[in-house]
Amino acid sequence: MITETKLRVRYAETDKMGIVHHSNYYVWFELGRSDLCRERGFSYLEMEDVEKARLVVAESQCRYKSPAFYEDELIVRTALGDLRSRSVLFSYEVYRPSTDTMIATGETKHIVTDPGGRIRTMPRKYRSLLTENE
Amino acid sequence: MITETKLRVRYAETDKMGIVHHSNYYVWFELGRSDLCRERGFSYLEMEDVEKARLVVAESQCRYKSPAFYEDELIVRTALGDLRSRSVLFSYEVYRPSTDTMIATGETKHIVTDPGGRIRTMPRKYRSLLTENE
Amino acid sequence: MITETKLRVRYAETDKMGIVHHSNYYVWFELGRSDLCRERGFSYLEMEDVEKARLVVAESQCRYKSPAFYEDELIVRTALGDLRSRSVLFSYEVYRPSTDTMIATGETKHIVTDPGGRIRTMPRKYRSLLTENE
Amino acid sequence: MITETKLRVRYAETDKMGIVHHSNYYVWFELGRSDLCRERGFSYLEMEDVEKARLVVAESQCRYKSPAFYEDELIVRTALGDLRSRSVLFSYEVYRPSTDTMIATGETKHIVTDPGGRIRTMPRKYRSLLTENE
Repeated sequence: MITETKLRVRYAETDKMGIVHHSNYYVWFELGRSDLCRERGFSYLEMEDVEKARLVVAESQCRYKSPAFYEDELIVRTALGDLRSRSVLFSYEVYRPSTDTMIATGETKHIVTDPGGRIRTMPRKYRSLLTENE
Repeated sequence: MITETKLRVRYAETDKMGIVHHSNYYVWFELGRSDLCRERGFSYLEMEDVEKARLVVAESQCRYKSPAFYEDELIVRTALGDLRSRSVLFSYEVYRPSTDTMIATGETKHIVTDPGGRIRTMPRKYRSLLTENE
Repeated sequence: MITETKLRVRYAETDKMGIVHHSNYYVWFELGRSDLCRERGFSYLEMEDVEKARLVVAESQCRYKSPAFYEDELIVRTALGDLRSRSVLFSYEVYRPSTDTMIATGETKHIVTDPGGRIRTMPRKYRSLLTENE
Repeated sequence: MITETKLRVRYAETDKMGIVHHSNYYVWFELGRSDLCRERGFSYLEMEDVEKARLVVAESQCRYKSPAFYEDELIVRTALGDLRSRSVLFSYEVYRPSTDTMIATGETKHIVTDPGGRIRTMPRKYRSLLTENE
């Protein structure tokens, strides 16, 4: 199951090259992750604040295919990848429908930790919610 | 007493107009505040983590005089303004020495709160450190 | 006429205090400005790229009333203030409907320039579009 | 030859987890790249503005080993990787000397383009400057 997140490129996200600065794609991936969790019945905030389980980013990666511009309407497609007891992988596509252009693809890998940074297992409840709609 | 903070403009701080995006000046002001505290013998981090006193921003203001560009070497001059038991004011100038240009001026007003957001008085220790070198 | 822009607070917009970093409000104000232009029949991008008229920020100001948090659904209400031949003022309110809370208010003042940074008058077309729905 | 760039973590770079938001590492990598070019005798700005050659980011990647915190003094170590006529690779380490901790490692791959986004070869002058000190 793919989650789609719509966004419009902000002026502040551009740089002097006239295109979106590459670091912002990781912020967009995060919007996608957030929406994926919400679609499956929980907020990431709740997991963090109530269950004291955090998804710390362990790796991130992006391949930039085509530049994105100010005011572009884009879609981030987020998919759950490998889900283990203590880690989870998400993959992303950033797409511009108006021109049928793939803008970027990427992945992030996360480790589940408690607020003190110690690795822990993902709470069963969230693990189930993440997987049951696959 | 004025605190001087040197910085070099980052590529990511520019926007498609080719100049620094105006929101970044507030981040630079924060560097100035941070350095002012450090020069006067304490870290803002320490006040926040040890004394549980936070300087929440209540107002911020900036007047942009001349644009700043990628790789510009700038100086932020930070001064302590009005210091009260529960609030403090800082003022700033952003200056480019190489061309003798005033880039921007600004102010921020802060309220002292505890981590829960309740207004409190500034710990005496930090208040003294802030004022003793005026 | 007030333009309303909906946004959801991004994780990357928060800071270690657990609230939205104050510099991000200026990015939200910009979303509001952008939407106000769009609602009145033109894109800011078009004015910049086609007419070579830029709205350079000359002053910005924000008063923070109540903190905003990750995942908050907020509304930015943007209004056109004083419109002159070479400058324009916008005012903003950031509001959280779910708790009926005013989060912040602010203003920005802009000077109309050409791409070289020289002050010019606002193209008649955009000036008309901005005012005709007031 | 390794280029070392010192930086201090900014408050605005932290997120509600209390650590540096992962997207900022890519901004730090960019500081490292910038300094590497400067150490080898040219500014990236000059290559972009004078020679009309841009290093567009084609891929970026980061592995986060240990969190970074507000006020941390860090070093970015940047190395030139594979240099081809139309692409260049940089690799990075982010390191905290005070605790002898590796914070992160990463790579970015860049394609040389003209301002219109068409792939071109890197100007001979910059190519020589980049390689002659290896």
